[in-house]
Amino acid sequence: MHEKAAVLSSPGEFSVRKAQACILARTSPLGVENIALERALGRVLAVDVRANRDLPPRDISAMDGYAARAADIADAPSTLEIVDDIKAGDLPRAVLQSGQCARIMTGAPLPAGADTVVRVEDTRPAPDGAVEVLVPVQTATDIRRRAENMRQGEVVLAAGAEITPGALGVLATVKQAAVTVYQPPRVAILSSGNELEALRAPFDPDKIPDSNTYALMAQVQAQGVEPCLLGIARDDPAELAGFLERGLGYDVLLVSGGASIGVHDYVRPTLAALGVTLHFWRVEMRPGHPVAFGVSDRGLVFCLPGNPVSSMVCFEQFVLPALRALGGHRRLFRRTLPARLIHAIKSRPGRVEFVRVTLARDASGLYEASSAGSQSSGDILTMARADGLLIVPGASKGLAAGDIARVQLLEAGAYQEQAELEDEP
Amino acid sequence: MHEKAAVLSSPGEFSVRKAQACILARTSPLGVENIALERALGRVLAVDVRANRDLPPRDISAMDGYAARAADIADAPSTLEIVDDIKAGDLPRAVLQSGQCARIMTGAPLPAGADTVVRVEDTRPAPDGAVEVLVPVQTATDIRRRAENMRQGEVVLAAGAEITPGALGVLATVKQAAVTVYQPPRVAILSSGNELEALRAPFDPDKIPDSNTYALMAQVQAQGVEPCLLGIARDDPAELAGFLERGLGYDVLLVSGGASIGVHDYVRPTLAALGVTLHFWRVEMRPGHPVAFGVSDRGLVFCLPGNPVSSMVCFEQFVLPALRALGGHRRLFRRTLPARLIHAIKSRPGRVEFVRVTLARDASGLYEASSAGSQSSGDILTMARADGLLIVPGASKGLAAGDIARVQLLEAGAYQEQAELEDEP
Repeated sequence: MHEKAAVLSSPGEFSVRKAQACILARTSPLGVENIALERALGRVLAVDVRANRDLPPRDISAMDGYAARAADIADAPSTLEIVDDIKAGDLPRAVLQSGQCARIMTGAPLPAGADTVVRVEDTRPAPDGAVEVLVPVQTATDIRRRAENMRQGEVVLAAGAEITPGALGVLATVKQAAVTVYQPPRVAILSSGNELEALRAPFDPDKIPDSNTYALMAQVQAQGVEPCLLGIARDDPAELAGFLERGLGYDVLLVSGGASIGVHDYVRPTLAALGVTLHFWRVEMRPGHPVAFGVSDRGLVFCLPGNPVSSMVCFEQFVLPALRALGGHRRLFRRTLPARLIHAIKSRPGRVEFVRVTLARDASGLYEASSAGSQSSGDILTMARADGLLIVPGASKGLAAGDIARVQLLEAGAYQEQAELEDEP
Repeated sequence: MHEKAAVLSSPGEFSVRKAQACILARTSPLGVENIALERALGRVLAVDVRANRDLPPRDISAMDGYAARAADIADAPSTLEIVDDIKAGDLPRAVLQSGQCARIMTGAPLPAGADTVVRVEDTRPAPDGAVEVLVPVQTATDIRRRAENMRQGEVVLAAGAEITPGALGVLATVKQAAVTVYQPPRVAILSSGNELEALRAPFDPDKIPDSNTYALMAQVQAQGVEPCLLGIARDDPAELAGFLERGLGYDVLLVSGGASIGVHDYVRPTLAALGVTLHFWRVEMRPGHPVAFGVSDRGLVFCLPGNPVSSMVCFEQFVLPALRALGGHRRLFRRTLPARLIHAIKSRPGRVEFVRVTLARDASGLYEASSAGSQSSGDILTMARADGLLIVPGASKGLAAGDIARVQLLEAGAYQEQAELEDEP
């Protein structure tokens, strides 16, 4: 009770949901730009895109076979004279008369007079340039109608659509060689702390390697953004102010370390002196309690915890949705899936807990989650092993084996080892 | 029965599973290369990586507070003299004597003589440079032990590990500024067919826009590979041979269109003349029946259907696992999740069917799948709308509303609109 009372009395402490709402209320899409289609994957359309043509442009054959008049071949077998040979991309020359047909390829336009297509498998060659139709054929079989897939002028992708491979195929279909999309945010990453050793600095056994810069870099890169790595600011007010000043020139500045309540932490006061308004500085979550969010007239600042796992988990909950919102996305959060816990998880109520888990499948195909190992916030090895973050709700005293919980899929979770097609017995 | 008999009699026709096995049996990781950590996201480690240090390097404090001797503060309240001030990155100077403590920051090393840490929240300042401890404290509270997260020499990531953001954080932790990873495959993409209009060619109402080149490009880019776009080969044997010859210089050549059984299709015989052994040329699936796979002494060739959706679905089932296997990945297939169908789906038995679906959640958090719209293989709009491909097993005559089916998540499915944290009531 003592601890809970302290938590509630803290003015800058938000729930995760309130913190996300606070961030997203201050986050709107940046400007737009026009880029080549070849660079557009993962970006978000800023304008509606309309079809520039009917597709198919005419009635076309859906199969390789023979275009014919259905009245001629209602009874099988029947024999037709071949008067034309129409490939995809050709224009038909002949008008079919009774008793005639045209050899036709998938995608080729139907000749005038034809109202059906006979599949090549349902025919066999006959003497004197004729073909024998072996099965009775109905009207309008295996024809794709003009404009059945796309009609000129209709909106095929609306503003706000994410450019997935499928959407990119649509854009190519309507000849959008360049597309108007939201700009991606410019992101800077700064680590702080005297104890940190830079990646390419000489080895010092008493230092702690700066992993946060690179884990955060990778999380940003996974959003399609190449961040600027500012380096390591030492615990010196002037040096820190210089780094922060530079970082505030970006749309989003990520600072890890130096945001807790200790006397040596200069980040919060220095940010305030630089004109940043901090909206919260603790969140009721574990790992990741000391996380701060602020806004300047130039952009957003996130102060992430110094512990590697806490920093990454806070990125997932707060920075990732912000980056996606700035980039114009509508889907801001990691996809979750339900999974059955295969062992109990203890939790202290009051903070939502993110548990690193690996996923497997039970015999029925449902997901089973189990701890990826140590849940210490310093243990980045289990973060590397995890397929996802299992969410223990804030009010929960823990989950029992067999409980169904939600798991946020981390990036490695998008692929699996078995195809699970069930296409063979 | 007629159709099924024809299917079974076709020598080059495989099940999806057999086709995947055929491809993967001829697919092994390419060479290795050493690249900067900044470029390593999504790649696969080709060697084991070991810890270069103990982490933490010493016993350190897990909290901001006071390092002390537990025997001094077993009863509360108690008062201690502050004799040192240890920040992260410092080395302790004093050896604690009875009645003494050192102010200590999270991550700072414990001074000799200390065996516990009192949190700053559990203290208040006392006169004359002393501190009052308000709660009784146990031995070894809030200490992180030397090497508890990582021990020098232990394997922290094994060969074959995918470099996720978490793994990249581990690599930075052990100071791997460059890493040895598998090379990504070099991929070329070719479209074929007289009917095709290039993306930047003038508009011709009778042509069909070449969308396959770009949808496939995006699917390859989503695997972290920038493909070479060879363009469009017309239905001319010499021109086609020239394009194919160039494409065969890549690790993987994707050809779309021109692979069906029609008389105007030159791709298969031309590939054979260029020394490519075709292993199958039809697969029992829908969409995507006419898909071929071949091997030359230089690489792999996939002949994908000309229909935009068929081409993309075949990529997902065959090319994606091949690209991932060539790049050293172990997880080769799209993650599937179970979803409840909200309407019936009809299916003809004999071919596994991939149905474009959108996903929503029911009140209990389970996924519900519904058709994304027209399942015509020409309708790329529904491919752009789909969150996943629902698998109707080959033996199935269809699925009923309420049935649970597997859905392969497409890329857009990795994010969702609601966070679903349940951290507030």
